[in-house]
Amino acid sequence: MWPPDEIVRVLRERGELSEPAPGVVTLRGEVARLMCELEQAIGALCATESPDEWRVPPAIAFPALARADYFASFPQWLTLVSHLSDDEAALRVVAEQNEPGGASVTAPKAALNPAVCYHVYSSLAGQIIDESRVITAQSTCWRHEGARHAPLARQWAFTMREIVFVGTAADAQRFLDRAGSHVIHLARALGLDASVAVATDPFFAPTARGKQLLQQIEELKHEMLLPIGTENRIAASSFNLHGIFFGQAFDIRLPSGAPATTACVAFGLERWLLAFLVRHGPDSAAWPAVDSLLEALHA
Amino acid sequence: MWPPDEIVRVLRERGELSEPAPGVVTLRGEVARLMCELEQAIGALCATESPDEWRVPPAIAFPALARADYFASFPQWLTLVSHLSDDEAALRVVAEQNEPGGASVTAPKAALNPAVCYHVYSSLAGQIIDESRVITAQSTCWRHEGARHAPLARQWAFTMREIVFVGTAADAQRFLDRAGSHVIHLARALGLDASVAVATDPFFAPTARGKQLLQQIEELKHEMLLPIGTENRIAASSFNLHGIFFGQAFDIRLPSGAPATTACVAFGLERWLLAFLVRHGPDSAAWPAVDSLLEALHA
Repeated sequence: MWPPDEIVRVLRERGELSEPAPGVVTLRGEVARLMCELEQAIGALCATESPDEWRVPPAIAFPALARADYFASFPQWLTLVSHLSDDEAALRVVAEQNEPGGASVTAPKAALNPAVCYHVYSSLAGQIIDESRVITAQSTCWRHEGARHAPLARQWAFTMREIVFVGTAADAQRFLDRAGSHVIHLARALGLDASVAVATDPFFAPTARGKQLLQQIEELKHEMLLPIGTENRIAASSFNLHGIFFGQAFDIRLPSGAPATTACVAFGLERWLLAFLVRHGPDSAAWPAVDSLLEALHA
Repeated sequence: MWPPDEIVRVLRERGELSEPAPGVVTLRGEVARLMCELEQAIGALCATESPDEWRVPPAIAFPALARADYFASFPQWLTLVSHLSDDEAALRVVAEQNEPGGASVTAPKAALNPAVCYHVYSSLAGQIIDESRVITAQSTCWRHEGARHAPLARQWAFTMREIVFVGTAADAQRFLDRAGSHVIHLARALGLDASVAVATDPFFAPTARGKQLLQQIEELKHEMLLPIGTENRIAASSFNLHGIFFGQAFDIRLPSGAPATTACVAFGLERWLLAFLVRHGPDSAAWPAVDSLLEALHA
């Protein structure tokens, strides 16, 4: 096994990894190709769970996140998008200085996606779900973690794919069991020693509301951990059962009138890539062909 | 031909198009599948021009854009990313109010990509290019156009793929001629009546610097226009020759020591989708199979 720092150092030295802004990463060359292959493998797995792929945009309006109690839960991660005031004089200053330093910036207009699944709940808000639905989508997501950022392991902007379930409680559990087992199999087919552990989201809990949310979701989150060292593991996927939390919050109902149960399976693609590189090294000559590993998986 | 407004209205009514924040669009159902097919077709074309696909992140640091004179050129479009102050008391207010309205937001830390190619110039800065290079990458890009935003036609956030050339002037012209003709063929294979016109970027020109930039790039930009009405066409791709502008700005040199010439071909994926829908209608039953159109193209 290669230490993650060493992987990043080698890729950087070869010009295959760089950070064009703090917490965001460019991949080039063989490692970019590998990332595409892993993305396709994960996409193919998700397509077998759901033929219903959505194209979600990179941002979401505040009211949708408020409905999901996001600001009460994870304000520490929030990443916001704004633009310059369209005042001509202000723009002229930016143009003359050729830098936006003192620019008059609007109040933030939207949040950059903190996760993919909020788009699903928000789109289904107010609807009655005749039968259980499974949806998949991929998007860049943003979580600001300041000094903790590290390339591939913990980026400000990273690539997330999710499979999102909305329907009955019984179907939700079956969905999680089935999808979870497929995810573990995929990781093992890639040579990765996957394990599963109960996890807790790092809720921002100093408020009464935060504490209440924390209790509601206890023991409903599991993570798939992949080794990134002899002692260290990284959460590369998560399996989340939300009960009726989002069904109630977004008024998504079953034909009986009861709120729908939701669940989701999430993939952090850069973390899958890092675990693969830690296991197989930074040299492409030593990488098993992802294609043939997947064929073996399906044989 | 269907009017674009009618296309958007029908898709919205069917729940296949929605705007989860101003200027950003979710696609679902058949139209999401069509978008994936067009993305793959365009990706395949770009792969024939360049086997060198980069994975670029959604943001770029200010100094890279300053080096490209971006703030002097297009400050009106600039879209910025910031996060909340990590002050515990400020976060507690956000958590208690469950909305970021009065939050203490940091000064913008980076720009969301206004185009893909800046990542390429910035990554190659200071290098000597032994032979001409062709790189491709896709990313969400952001250009704020306020009241002019319209789904698919002009979004705040949209999907851009580029093929970027860096090398000699002679190779640059050959690259543009060859790639340009392939792009036109692809559009025609999709049933779209493509035409090409000289274009000018909407430079922000009230400053002397802006006017100077404007002169430098005159007649170096061509656009591929696709019909979106009997009288209206939309620029769905562009063919840009930059001369040595970026070669000088980023100190990218040829072995002779002379600055490299750059060029790029860009695709606005949502505009390709809109033109396809205007031509073939909003009903998937009437859509020609993108796969078979492409086979005919390559036959």
